[in-house]
Amino acid sequence: MDFITLLGLCAASLTTGAFLPQMLKTWQTKSAKDVSYLMLVTFMSGLFLWLIYGICLNSWPIILSNTVTLFFNLIMLWLKMKYR
Amino acid sequence: MDFITLLGLCAASLTTGAFLPQMLKTWQTKSAKDVSYLMLVTFMSGLFLWLIYGICLNSWPIILSNTVTLFFNLIMLWLKMKYR
Repeated sequence: MDFITLLGLCAASLTTGAFLPQMLKTWQTKSAKDVSYLMLVTFMSGLFLWLIYGICLNSWPIILSNTVTLFFNLIMLWLKMKYR
Repeated sequence: MDFITLLGLCAASLTTGAFLPQMLKTWQTKSAKDVSYLMLVTFMSGLFLWLIYGICLNSWPIILSNTVTLFFNLIMLWLKMKYR
């Protein structure tokens, strides 16, 4: 694995990892009132485009981080719909 | 501008734009209690590495989105320190 890919994977794990506390808080408090649908859908559309971009560039850090963050946001969206 | 760069710029504007409401809310409510220092520093470290990664790949979408998001998070960090 070359240096640039390793750099990207470190970046990916930090930014994706930083997302976990917010998701766990939403899960535990069963409350997603301070997360707006508009922000979630906007963010998820962006993540999806980043995923396509990563595939086009064949960049595993971009593909992995956006797949995982997209998955986290799907959970947030489910929690939002379930707990309003 | 080729298709892939355009795709990346669209992804960048969506994920960076989705961050604005949260920053504006923190700014207006003058409260950043639900944002943890650990999350902010972790996220900013990741954004910085993504910025280096973008420079290495000479990818303008990655450079621009992470520079702007890093700037937003610096404001969040300042608000967090100022308003606890």
